[in-house]
Amino acid sequence: MPAVLGLIKELATFEKEPDAVLLRVEDLERDGFGARPLFQCFVAELAGEIVGMALCYPRYSTWKGPTIHLEDLIVTQAKRGLKIGAALYKKVIEFGYEQGVERIEWVVLDWNTDAIGFYENTGARVLEDWNIAQMDRKAMKKYIAKP
Amino acid sequence: MPAVLGLIKELATFEKEPDAVLLRVEDLERDGFGARPLFQCFVAELAGEIVGMALCYPRYSTWKGPTIHLEDLIVTQAKRGLKIGAALYKKVIEFGYEQGVERIEWVVLDWNTDAIGFYENTGARVLEDWNIAQMDRKAMKKYIAKP
Repeated sequence: MPAVLGLIKELATFEKEPDAVLLRVEDLERDGFGARPLFQCFVAELAGEIVGMALCYPRYSTWKGPTIHLEDLIVTQAKRGLKIGAALYKKVIEFGYEQGVERIEWVVLDWNTDAIGFYENTGARVLEDWNIAQMDRKAMKKYIAKP
Repeated sequence: MPAVLGLIKELATFEKEPDAVLLRVEDLERDGFGARPLFQCFVAELAGEIVGMALCYPRYSTWKGPTIHLEDLIVTQAKRGLKIGAALYKKVIEFGYEQGVERIEWVVLDWNTDAIGFYENTGARVLEDWNIAQMDRKAMKKYIAKP
């Protein structure tokens, strides 16, 4: 998990949001490896070093029942171009298939045409008409307090 | 759950996808009320009848830790305009706040400007630069079989 958190922070820094990562190693260890793990994490090792990871967890569709959500798929900058990302991606698809789910879902930035092309080539559909809405804890508190 | 499934099917029919709902009442009962419920469901009752529902479940952010996802918020067509949807929405926000999560997330169709306006008024952010990607079971099988 220290290596996994390193990858998460590397990506956040690349996305110019290094301070957005509130998680610590002990959070990942508790949340992923307790009696009721909140996620599954696959890692890619190269010469004994963790250079990539894919993190996913169960979701629920009111049309399809249990599904899998792929939250993160990260390969460290220095090890791109070795098809490590594709191997992790395939691992997640195999995992979802073995779990028996009807759907695996993830998100992609709309300008990331390389990624979108890759996903569509693998048989995934990219939906363009949905927006993501989020409320953070500060906004929750404010909204609840409204009369 | 029979009434909840009725609402799910009413919405699917409205969205012109009545056959997309694979779930049956027994699936909802097993998945929502076992030893490890896969979702939480709030219902709105009016004169003893269930006329609305909000269904949510936990997710996991590698930046924020545990989050809540609001999958469905449905009010039956005949009972719109009575602020039942707003009451269910507030219930989910309160629930997320009590659970201690840093984020509640859901999706909205990009042409649904009424809903987007409502959400933004409550303090939510609507992100426009992410697309949803999905792979169904048939595509999983095909992709895994590729050499």
